[in-house]
Amino acid sequence: MAARIVQDNYGKSRVRLLKVDKRKPRHDIQSLTLNIALEGDFAAIHTTGDNSLCLPTDTMKNTVYALAGQTDEIESPEQFGLRLARHFLSTCDHVSLVRISINEHSWKRMKFADGEHDHSFIRGSKEERTAKIDATRDAETVESGVEDLVVLKSAQSGFVGFIKDAYTTLPEVSDRILATSIKANWRYGKVESVTDEVFHDIRKTILRVFADHDSLSVQHTLYAIGDTVLAEFSQIDEIAFSLPNIHCLPVDVSKFGVEDKNCIFIPTDEPHGLIEARLAR
Amino acid sequence: MAARIVQDNYGKSRVRLLKVDKRKPRHDIQSLTLNIALEGDFAAIHTTGDNSLCLPTDTMKNTVYALAGQTDEIESPEQFGLRLARHFLSTCDHVSLVRISINEHSWKRMKFADGEHDHSFIRGSKEERTAKIDATRDAETVESGVEDLVVLKSAQSGFVGFIKDAYTTLPEVSDRILATSIKANWRYGKVESVTDEVFHDIRKTILRVFADHDSLSVQHTLYAIGDTVLAEFSQIDEIAFSLPNIHCLPVDVSKFGVEDKNCIFIPTDEPHGLIEARLAR
Amino acid sequence: MAARIVQDNYGKSRVRLLKVDKRKPRHDIQSLTLNIALEGDFAAIHTTGDNSLCLPTDTMKNTVYALAGQTDEIESPEQFGLRLARHFLSTCDHVSLVRISINEHSWKRMKFADGEHDHSFIRGSKEERTAKIDATRDAETVESGVEDLVVLKSAQSGFVGFIKDAYTTLPEVSDRILATSIKANWRYGKVESVTDEVFHDIRKTILRVFADHDSLSVQHTLYAIGDTVLAEFSQIDEIAFSLPNIHCLPVDVSKFGVEDKNCIFIPTDEPHGLIEARLAR
Amino acid sequence: MAARIVQDNYGKSRVRLLKVDKRKPRHDIQSLTLNIALEGDFAAIHTTGDNSLCLPTDTMKNTVYALAGQTDEIESPEQFGLRLARHFLSTCDHVSLVRISINEHSWKRMKFADGEHDHSFIRGSKEERTAKIDATRDAETVESGVEDLVVLKSAQSGFVGFIKDAYTTLPEVSDRILATSIKANWRYGKVESVTDEVFHDIRKTILRVFADHDSLSVQHTLYAIGDTVLAEFSQIDEIAFSLPNIHCLPVDVSKFGVEDKNCIFIPTDEPHGLIEARLAR
Repeated sequence: MAARIVQDNYGKSRVRLLKVDKRKPRHDIQSLTLNIALEGDFAAIHTTGDNSLCLPTDTMKNTVYALAGQTDEIESPEQFGLRLARHFLSTCDHVSLVRISINEHSWKRMKFADGEHDHSFIRGSKEERTAKIDATRDAETVESGVEDLVVLKSAQSGFVGFIKDAYTTLPEVSDRILATSIKANWRYGKVESVTDEVFHDIRKTILRVFADHDSLSVQHTLYAIGDTVLAEFSQIDEIAFSLPNIHCLPVDVSKFGVEDKNCIFIPTDEPHGLIEARLAR
Repeated sequence: MAARIVQDNYGKSRVRLLKVDKRKPRHDIQSLTLNIALEGDFAAIHTTGDNSLCLPTDTMKNTVYALAGQTDEIESPEQFGLRLARHFLSTCDHVSLVRISINEHSWKRMKFADGEHDHSFIRGSKEERTAKIDATRDAETVESGVEDLVVLKSAQSGFVGFIKDAYTTLPEVSDRILATSIKANWRYGKVESVTDEVFHDIRKTILRVFADHDSLSVQHTLYAIGDTVLAEFSQIDEIAFSLPNIHCLPVDVSKFGVEDKNCIFIPTDEPHGLIEARLAR
Repeated sequence: MAARIVQDNYGKSRVRLLKVDKRKPRHDIQSLTLNIALEGDFAAIHTTGDNSLCLPTDTMKNTVYALAGQTDEIESPEQFGLRLARHFLSTCDHVSLVRISINEHSWKRMKFADGEHDHSFIRGSKEERTAKIDATRDAETVESGVEDLVVLKSAQSGFVGFIKDAYTTLPEVSDRILATSIKANWRYGKVESVTDEVFHDIRKTILRVFADHDSLSVQHTLYAIGDTVLAEFSQIDEIAFSLPNIHCLPVDVSKFGVEDKNCIFIPTDEPHGLIEARLAR
Repeated sequence: MAARIVQDNYGKSRVRLLKVDKRKPRHDIQSLTLNIALEGDFAAIHTTGDNSLCLPTDTMKNTVYALAGQTDEIESPEQFGLRLARHFLSTCDHVSLVRISINEHSWKRMKFADGEHDHSFIRGSKEERTAKIDATRDAETVESGVEDLVVLKSAQSGFVGFIKDAYTTLPEVSDRILATSIKANWRYGKVESVTDEVFHDIRKTILRVFADHDSLSVQHTLYAIGDTVLAEFSQIDEIAFSLPNIHCLPVDVSKFGVEDKNCIFIPTDEPHGLIEARLAR
């Protein structure tokens, strides 16, 4: 008895695109990395090697460049992703679901004493704006988000009152460094609500709550951020977070004959706490 | 109205362990990286910052070392993972699900003309043996797998008969390089079926089918491998694959005045096809 | 006859430090990664395993934290590196040369509508400020620099008139993207000339010349930058550059039925050109 | 006064090549990454943007593929590097020095119960074989080496008798884990002495001395290895090592109520000791 295909998808990953809008002397640029995945009637490709319903992943890559070239202006990653998803659904009858995920890399225009430069740019932080489109012929779901948004607060963070057992060595601390690399994704109720403005306002809200919150744990701060975003942005149905703790271990410099003022820390990457939650109304 | 927690989990990631069995002059070593995640009654941690039901991730890390130290012999990653999962379930009443994922890194004993060395080892390939345990008080699910198992065949692979459209530039090829980095995970029907022998036999089967298959596409080879594993190993209920295509682009050296024998290639990392499927009986 | 030690050094690498200045409500932070290497009378360590003149690298690491804790204020990486170097020379008679290299990571204070935040920060770009100190009992050399300063210009760059041979396939282009990740190091004539102001002025000069130059090649731009820095900053004796070309390959979208406006590019990481030069007065 | 060019070079980095020898049913493969750098009369490129003596780095890349295609058989990296270097010197009169560095990646033929497979391969360890050629019209220097050769011994290693000062916290240990990632380069006296056999014999000698040595420090082991290689291989003039200490920190599990048998360790990547030396006759 032959194996049954429970689920399958295929596509092209890590498609890189740099688009330049040169219509005016002041250029604009956009740098994206895209992943495309299709679901559909692909059983024969697997079972008999019949590729007659196989759109090559190389063609998916070409499609990214072709569709990017069809517009002069630079679109938001969500807009471009929707356009790509609709293209594959409209041209491939046997495809039932298109999933596009896009990371937009940060570039900033150079600034000098005499103003901003027309066509010179400097790479921004590792933070990425993300967009994820899941499209079928019946429904389109759009998520926006941020990734690698690394933040740190040097006050208003503690961690006390936790479970103690035979393997506990962590001391309670009422004044610690809180640092994390924020990955957050929010789902819009309607495709029409997706705008750059909402994106930037939600991102700013995340930062503001992180900064102002009296944090009793990463979970506590995560919830405060998500609760605020859901309260302030009716466009959003759901928001999910994945927050690795970037532990900054205090060094007790008093053992080196120096007064310990809780100012010297060792940032570490591993091991690390990882706090994840999905919140909704 | 406060936000609702749809799902949450937290734990410790990238916990590294090196264990040495020194009971005999011939030492054995094992190198693992573990991720631990718990689900349970954590709502108050999020909403009010009440940590009375919060087991610190630092304690989870210590637990790994404590439990590793409790046995002299080296266990399989699946066995060690099950022991860890059962520990957290038995000591934390408020925890409902424990998820342990373990990557075992490859080390090989050094060999010389006069035989194998007692206590000197050399790092193996990047290939990792993986184990994933999902345990509740009612059920334990164990998956084993491989990751970063990079393989290549220089014959018996082609890709023809695919869809052509306005964006197609890929030529049909009947003799290409097929290379991928195999990630495969298989789920055992019963915890009792989990043995090192089954792991190694499945891994060998994956390699054998990859090597011998007349490949008409990555999907075609994926299915052939999964179908064979499910047919030969009744212990397995399901197997999933994630296969990035490591494209090796042929260089037409005839443009450089050299006869082209289809022997010179450029291996690339991006963009790359990605083929995924989950197969079951 | 025993082997002769031509040159040797040892030390601690990747020592990470986060220092917080908490003396005022408005905190300041600094994040560094340090490498320490010593040269000196270490022959017996190698030849006989006599460690009596071996300062453990673990102690070097502790010294970083001890000396960081000795000052409340945050020093420039150059100042801190000099202090470290002098410490090792003054406490270890058998050490003849201390080499300290420091990478300072970029963190920026969070800004909101009501102003800058007192103690919350966001990670900046991957660009790093570098400092390298080579100190003996007779001389101290200080180099400052930048690393991973990624820049791009979408106009004023071409590459024509180069050698053509049997293996040439590159077309001449008068309007291309120029992108690189600038690594630059400059050596100060005197330790007294090392200031934050000079650092920031040189960095700004590098960006300005990159932006404004009519580039005929990476070499041409490299030289223009270095020539300007040496002309404008008498404090500097020498400046060295390592400039990997981040090739952005144009996509001819006309083959996809779209008018080609030279606006769609594929950024690539490999292979890449690498242009290096050291300039002096 | 214009800046003076103290030193400059340019070339192509990260050129990847996969070559397959298909002359017999049993294929052979070789996977290389190459860096090419030229020195020569490049002043006008820098100072005036005159590219008439500029061989594009794109052409250097093409040359790799062209020359690889000229031979059916697979050459050693040293042979191929020499052929490349001589090509650039013979075709570019204005080039004075060619530096080729090559990393050969490890692939192994798949083995099954019925023998080795004709055309299926599995990726080996991260260890790389390296070759470096520096060629002028007067002289050719060849270095071979290994990189990322990760080794570990669980006995016969200690570290005692070192300097103690106010910042010392490291305890003396007579039984520790010694692990490192060996980078070693050796220079041949004559190009004629470069053979695969010598390469493999030196590599084996490095492993044997590492395994058998009673190590009192990384330096002690480094010297023992280098001294043996120089004594046993008259073809070699000089050998250099860069040995990062992969610290495996012992976990005192007795604090968790478990007898401590010095068997549980935490491998770490940072910070790490780094021991470097160059030895000669």
